[in-house]
Amino acid sequence: MKDTAVLLIDCPDRKGLVARVSGLLYERGANILHADQHIDHEQGLFFMRVEWELNGVPSGEAGFDLDGFKAAFTPLAAELGMRWRLSASARRPRVALFCSQYLHCIADLLYRWRTGELACEIPLILSNHHEVAELAAFYGVDFEHTPVTAETRAAAEQRQLDLLAGHGIELVVLARYMQILSPAFVSHYPAAIINVHHSFLPAFTGARPYHAAHERGVKLIGATSHYVTAELDDGPIIEQDVARISHRDQVEDLVARGRDLERMVLSRAVRWHLDRRILCYGNKTVVFD
Amino acid sequence: MKDTAVLLIDCPDRKGLVARVSGLLYERGANILHADQHIDHEQGLFFMRVEWELNGVPSGEAGFDLDGFKAAFTPLAAELGMRWRLSASARRPRVALFCSQYLHCIADLLYRWRTGELACEIPLILSNHHEVAELAAFYGVDFEHTPVTAETRAAAEQRQLDLLAGHGIELVVLARYMQILSPAFVSHYPAAIINVHHSFLPAFTGARPYHAAHERGVKLIGATSHYVTAELDDGPIIEQDVARISHRDQVEDLVARGRDLERMVLSRAVRWHLDRRILCYGNKTVVFD
Amino acid sequence: MKDTAVLLIDCPDRKGLVARVSGLLYERGANILHADQHIDHEQGLFFMRVEWELNGVPSGEAGFDLDGFKAAFTPLAAELGMRWRLSASARRPRVALFCSQYLHCIADLLYRWRTGELACEIPLILSNHHEVAELAAFYGVDFEHTPVTAETRAAAEQRQLDLLAGHGIELVVLARYMQILSPAFVSHYPAAIINVHHSFLPAFTGARPYHAAHERGVKLIGATSHYVTAELDDGPIIEQDVARISHRDQVEDLVARGRDLERMVLSRAVRWHLDRRILCYGNKTVVFD
Amino acid sequence: MKDTAVLLIDCPDRKGLVARVSGLLYERGANILHADQHIDHEQGLFFMRVEWELNGVPSGEAGFDLDGFKAAFTPLAAELGMRWRLSASARRPRVALFCSQYLHCIADLLYRWRTGELACEIPLILSNHHEVAELAAFYGVDFEHTPVTAETRAAAEQRQLDLLAGHGIELVVLARYMQILSPAFVSHYPAAIINVHHSFLPAFTGARPYHAAHERGVKLIGATSHYVTAELDDGPIIEQDVARISHRDQVEDLVARGRDLERMVLSRAVRWHLDRRILCYGNKTVVFD
Repeated sequence: MKDTAVLLIDCPDRKGLVARVSGLLYERGANILHADQHIDHEQGLFFMRVEWELNGVPSGEAGFDLDGFKAAFTPLAAELGMRWRLSASARRPRVALFCSQYLHCIADLLYRWRTGELACEIPLILSNHHEVAELAAFYGVDFEHTPVTAETRAAAEQRQLDLLAGHGIELVVLARYMQILSPAFVSHYPAAIINVHHSFLPAFTGARPYHAAHERGVKLIGATSHYVTAELDDGPIIEQDVARISHRDQVEDLVARGRDLERMVLSRAVRWHLDRRILCYGNKTVVFD
Repeated sequence: MKDTAVLLIDCPDRKGLVARVSGLLYERGANILHADQHIDHEQGLFFMRVEWELNGVPSGEAGFDLDGFKAAFTPLAAELGMRWRLSASARRPRVALFCSQYLHCIADLLYRWRTGELACEIPLILSNHHEVAELAAFYGVDFEHTPVTAETRAAAEQRQLDLLAGHGIELVVLARYMQILSPAFVSHYPAAIINVHHSFLPAFTGARPYHAAHERGVKLIGATSHYVTAELDDGPIIEQDVARISHRDQVEDLVARGRDLERMVLSRAVRWHLDRRILCYGNKTVVFD
Repeated sequence: MKDTAVLLIDCPDRKGLVARVSGLLYERGANILHADQHIDHEQGLFFMRVEWELNGVPSGEAGFDLDGFKAAFTPLAAELGMRWRLSASARRPRVALFCSQYLHCIADLLYRWRTGELACEIPLILSNHHEVAELAAFYGVDFEHTPVTAETRAAAEQRQLDLLAGHGIELVVLARYMQILSPAFVSHYPAAIINVHHSFLPAFTGARPYHAAHERGVKLIGATSHYVTAELDDGPIIEQDVARISHRDQVEDLVARGRDLERMVLSRAVRWHLDRRILCYGNKTVVFD
Repeated sequence: MKDTAVLLIDCPDRKGLVARVSGLLYERGANILHADQHIDHEQGLFFMRVEWELNGVPSGEAGFDLDGFKAAFTPLAAELGMRWRLSASARRPRVALFCSQYLHCIADLLYRWRTGELACEIPLILSNHHEVAELAAFYGVDFEHTPVTAETRAAAEQRQLDLLAGHGIELVVLARYMQILSPAFVSHYPAAIINVHHSFLPAFTGARPYHAAHERGVKLIGATSHYVTAELDDGPIIEQDVARISHRDQVEDLVARGRDLERMVLSRAVRWHLDRRILCYGNKTVVFD
């Protein structure tokens, strides 16, 4: 397991930002593993991700003093107008998975989690269907059935929020959940709900995108993972991918091909989020590679 | 140069279509090089492309009697309710290129034409700008300047139609022409005007799609070639392709990356059209490979 | 479930092959769903795949007489020098999966099988490791531990062959099995053992291809599924795919990215084999789409 | 035109490298536009590219003092064991293009140069064939015919070297030149000769790679741009790309598809080189994006 710290920064651009941040890290003895910056000149914004070792490489050397760094960095960040997040990679975020009766995405995420690709805890699965029960049992994750109807939505969402709070959830992943979350629900998890939409957004928003793609006669189909905001299918895009189709493919072929795309773009988005590679700004993302 | 015949067929699906067409070809001694069928079960439609040699392979053998085949096939096609086109690949369609001040697509098409990738004649280039003049001269193609304003559109289109008619044009290629053709103009060339749109349709129709893509924060940009119909950016799609971008790419980077996509999808569409590989039906295409 | 018949043919090319086959099908009342041909002009070979319905569409109508067709087709095929296979899609081939301690490919295949993407029976899993036991139990598949050492290879392979024979296995899938099968073993399953190699063959044959790719500094990594022949990593290629990497990716990143490629190219190969879409000739494949 | 400076650095990794470089830039008032680092932990190497404005953004402000920075940076770089290159983007490198009778790559490069995609001077074209003469004249570039035979190779190379020296050439681009340069020739332009090879290296090195690919039955073909070293097709890879093919594609189809790949990977490599984005180390490249 990695024993590193990651610092994510965004702030108005100005001279000397890299120098001041890297200068402080150098002063405090950090061994930097990765550092990446991005400047949006149009909007005058600066973004930075830096990752460094917490324990000295030669065993016996004292580890990096993360609390001390934080204490020193806080006033600097305030002076420079920075929004920032500092986290130790050893701390694994707590994630809940939501799904419907379609299990390909959740099965893929659970498998990747089990094999160590996703550095998180997954204590909770919620679904308005029962199909996922067997899979949840196999992976030893609590499964709660949370049925939703138009009439019971508010109460169902409250129960979901209570379950999330009770399990200390920090990230919600909608693995083909198929229900629309209310703005009130979404407001509890800003930039912390990841959805996969089965089209190349912004084409084919809403329901039945594979049918719409077939109807329009496109030559590529796509899938999109994005953060959920109050507006449907309009949140910051994290990842997209496409697959070539032909006139031979019927809707059911598109659905089958699309499953592989959905798995890929959703699992990448979750991994990048867990690796603290994503910064949101406006309605876009910076994804550090 | 290929000396073959190509027969394109579409009709309601029924039993025995392949048998009857291939039986007639066999009876008349055709040596089939490629044969491909497609059945749209949803709509009950049958599509076929078959290509055969016109001259006997052993020299000295008499060639295939194309007129005789045509005479024999016509009543069969009528009986089976077929729409069909029969053409000799040696006959090179006459193509006109339209462009604006952006020359990357037209330069690419002219280069491919010169080197033999596009089996056609290109006797005419039309543009509402002057930038293409030098290129037209280099390739020895007539260039006519056809300025268009909102007030003169009708007259300008009439002049364009006259020029096309005068040159015996069978296919119009809009190589980033940037002007919208009127439905009246389009009606003269059904399924015979190919346009390239600089987005992954149906996302980002209309003007400035790269700006819209940048604004939305997509992770892939695309380009689409399609037949032009009366409705803007809504005709049958022939080909699409995409390229990956990142948060580092500004609008001008998207424009530059997009130029390569546009060249590729437009040149493929033109080549496939010239090779008689495309059948339109409803608002879609069958592209035989 | 599809109730169709598939006929696969390869033979020396000559005039009238399509006409004679489609004529016989028409005569016997077949409703053709898909028909595809390929002619290799260089080698003078003809390939055909045709699929048709077995039961009449209007219920009550008598189904297609497959035995009768077979009786009529056999002499025609003999006359035309055809190799051919005729099969009903309702008959699900019996498949054995071999694996090592790396489970990503076998987990993917089992999941696709469970959800209906792979039309086969999977009665048997063999591994020289124990890690797959839990997965085999979850999916209800017999698991046999077949350890192999240099000294015991012959005996181990004999035991494997006995197990395969005992379960009536028709297709062996090496889902990252990591052991080299002897030519004697391979000779029992001609064009019926599918392997995945974790490189873009013919680059990086043999062991540790991701290390070799990293060492060479390639900008794309690949994976290849192929039929196993007596010569290592040299059998007919069924499918390949690649993913972009950069200087930032270390060997472990290549391994992780490669897992997704391996899953995709192996599962596609198995699906196409089960759908009777693949014909081998020489050291190549025709894959009908 | 961009008015920036680019500094490229590689050196043994140690703490504080980013801090010291960015600190010096900050101290001297640089407005950083892009900064990117890469650390190869395996080999303990550090790589950095930083680009900053030379003229103050508010007009009237004095520009950045590049000579003064250079004087201050030189001792720091020496202390830290850095290899480095500092260049002003306004200075356009002088490039020679070599070609054979196949003109698709050189035609593409000349077009991109004319339209401003390639920030360089192209004063010279060399070819052992005459086909390029017309193109050279159109673009106003000197063309020298330099025939080569096995017997005259040494003299021909000497004449080429003299022509390059006479034109002050800093980068040689082999745009499908098809002749092998001697190690002696190559030694004059270390990491300054870019070649395109028409395969996915290291597969299919040497002559006729499309024939070899067809023979092997691969499902994707590729192209590779790389720096030329003394060993054929073995230099540091800059860029690779692939295209899907099928059993339908004959060698001539591979050649045609490959032309588009070759154009893309070669033009990207040249652009990245001119933008000072590439660092070579060992037999690999770091390509900053």
